[in-house]
Amino acid sequence: MNVKTYMQQLGESARTASRTISAADTGLKNQALRAIADELSHNRESLLQANLQDMKVGQQYGLDEALLDRLSLDGGRIDAMIEGLEQVAALPDPCGEITHMNYRPSGIQVGKMRVPLGVVGIIYESRPNVTIDAASLCLKSGNATILRGGKEALNSNKAIVQCIQHGLQKVGLPDTVVQVVEMADREAVTELITMSEYVDVIVPRGGKNLIERISNDAKVSVIKHLDGICHVYIDDQADMEKAFNIALNAKTHRYGVCNAMETLLIAEGVATEILPRLVGAYKEKGVELRGCDKSRELVEDITVATEEDWRTEYLAAILSIRIVADMSEAIDHIRCYSSGHTEAIVTENITRARQFMAVVDSSSIIVNASTRFADGFEYGLGAEIGISTDKIHARGPVGLEGMTSQKWVVFGNGHIRE
Amino acid sequence: MNVKTYMQQLGESARTASRTISAADTGLKNQALRAIADELSHNRESLLQANLQDMKVGQQYGLDEALLDRLSLDGGRIDAMIEGLEQVAALPDPCGEITHMNYRPSGIQVGKMRVPLGVVGIIYESRPNVTIDAASLCLKSGNATILRGGKEALNSNKAIVQCIQHGLQKVGLPDTVVQVVEMADREAVTELITMSEYVDVIVPRGGKNLIERISNDAKVSVIKHLDGICHVYIDDQADMEKAFNIALNAKTHRYGVCNAMETLLIAEGVATEILPRLVGAYKEKGVELRGCDKSRELVEDITVATEEDWRTEYLAAILSIRIVADMSEAIDHIRCYSSGHTEAIVTENITRARQFMAVVDSSSIIVNASTRFADGFEYGLGAEIGISTDKIHARGPVGLEGMTSQKWVVFGNGHIRE
Repeated sequence: MNVKTYMQQLGESARTASRTISAADTGLKNQALRAIADELSHNRESLLQANLQDMKVGQQYGLDEALLDRLSLDGGRIDAMIEGLEQVAALPDPCGEITHMNYRPSGIQVGKMRVPLGVVGIIYESRPNVTIDAASLCLKSGNATILRGGKEALNSNKAIVQCIQHGLQKVGLPDTVVQVVEMADREAVTELITMSEYVDVIVPRGGKNLIERISNDAKVSVIKHLDGICHVYIDDQADMEKAFNIALNAKTHRYGVCNAMETLLIAEGVATEILPRLVGAYKEKGVELRGCDKSRELVEDITVATEEDWRTEYLAAILSIRIVADMSEAIDHIRCYSSGHTEAIVTENITRARQFMAVVDSSSIIVNASTRFADGFEYGLGAEIGISTDKIHARGPVGLEGMTSQKWVVFGNGHIRE
Repeated sequence: MNVKTYMQQLGESARTASRTISAADTGLKNQALRAIADELSHNRESLLQANLQDMKVGQQYGLDEALLDRLSLDGGRIDAMIEGLEQVAALPDPCGEITHMNYRPSGIQVGKMRVPLGVVGIIYESRPNVTIDAASLCLKSGNATILRGGKEALNSNKAIVQCIQHGLQKVGLPDTVVQVVEMADREAVTELITMSEYVDVIVPRGGKNLIERISNDAKVSVIKHLDGICHVYIDDQADMEKAFNIALNAKTHRYGVCNAMETLLIAEGVATEILPRLVGAYKEKGVELRGCDKSRELVEDITVATEEDWRTEYLAAILSIRIVADMSEAIDHIRCYSSGHTEAIVTENITRARQFMAVVDSSSIIVNASTRFADGFEYGLGAEIGISTDKIHARGPVGLEGMTSQKWVVFGNGHIRE
């Protein structure tokens, strides 16, 4: 079978299944999630076997250590998948909620009902746990899913999806609610992101290159996360203790995450007071520092930051530092270099905090807390399918609600337009 | 200057202006809308002159009567534009609204703030009043706008945008908040819908061909309206009086509108009772009827409906009719042929009404009222920039809120992630 025909069949099955899952009630969806957890629990051995196959091929192909680590499954990671399913089952169901129901002067009553998007295509790289994460969130939000993982994880993903499909069957749902693309061809992705008659939204998870390529070629809407060049601005009316803790935490709590700070902006008036102390703490943690001329005059051990530095998401123990005249200059810097992910201000001045919040155009604006809080779990979404750096549809951490839409519902009593 | 350079300059100016207008307070935006209304009022003569130029060229090019009518301006249409501006000024401002503000276990306080999308590109055809409609809604929702009207209306649109820009200047806002594309080349549209660094969303208004072409080529998100193949289903537990009135109104209130009924579905059990009476009323209004075999057995004067008929948005005094066994068959028909715009059910049975509402996947689901209510004004949005048949971002009638997004706002008191 050629790739196009194969993908069209997958799409058609998903569209049909989406009608069943979109109408499934909360109890049935939760039963399905728990049945899937049971399947995972009872098939640990075959999951680990399938994963071992992937690991062997991966080693033969010379995948690097980090990639192999992400690819590997063990008992703990299977436990985490099972726990994740339980957590999603425990979340409130966003579907069917009716809000804003009001009478209009014409006599009709109009409201909005939250409904699933339909069919979600997930494109991701080596981590097999994404298979469970993504499928469970889509299922709970009433969507059918087509999963396209990395070819290096194909055996693992097939084994996981087999558990998912058995779980679905056990509760009487069609196993086509969750499908995995088994053809490794790149063309399968091209087909997935362009067959808008069968797929309503694409969520790509992975490196920036993957996501940019998908966004460029897609005809279906994409909920995407590009980069996280996050800033912390320490205002000259900041509490210095809070500023120190936040600036340290935002960079050093974890390095390889999208909500870590990449550039620290400090108001000139407090630079002498806070920068040397911060530099000491960063040095202790082994953070490499690159800065503007003013910062380098104040403290040794800071190398020159180039134009390129301000535009870089390091995802590493590197920080760029710039001393600015005031908040206005900080905002100009952010406007120029931010990726629109998350920016924080540390200040005790409410007018400045309100101003920063009003004019900085990023998906999360944080006052007096670490950028590391920009996260679906921390925000109370219960789980997240990704973080969107777009403004359309969903912005910032995307949970169950981001996998839904709202339709209008109208009640009348024989009403007609005059 | 080549088209690309020209469009990039427009885009850059719009991006810069969007920062000012997104931070403008409600009072200032309303002042601007009223200043624009004044400009229109004081420049009636030059507006009519510019429009006369367009009309002359249009007649020379042999535009048909309907197109010339849509193109023409007169005193009444200018009055309507002025009134429209007043109405938009009177609407509540969606921007800045903070909702869902809650404390999290970590101690941070998290909420969502409604913010403008940024830069909106509007692509439309001959009607110059769209220039004011679209610009005023974008302005009120804090967005900068790039307008691309039909080349046959270029003089009218330039004259209107001159009024808009003078109004903006009078209240101290940059005139680049609203710009019109003056180059008539098709390439200007291609540029507008692909320069995602400057444009956040495209709203095309016009025929299906225009919209399909734009959706296919766009790299920027498109809020689009394709067709409105709307259905009314008369259930065998319907109140026959309500059913008669609704089915008549949905078809004959206006023919050329997207929320008019194109296909009537009638449950077999009540067909004998209601169809002859309805056919009589339709005939009186001059509606051409095409139907399934069963309907033709019941009533004369119904010609054969082909497969093509079920897929057609007539936008005319034509109706297709199908007799179905029950609601389930009606839903199957809708799933197969609906464009996802608006579907109505007439029934007194609450279980069926709930079922229809839950499983039919269209932007408006109406119980016991005419499909003609699917409209931004009727729904209380105050105004509408269009009706979306997509599920992503905005669905159904799109008002001011559809021109906005929500960002996350977080307050802490020195909080860090542990």
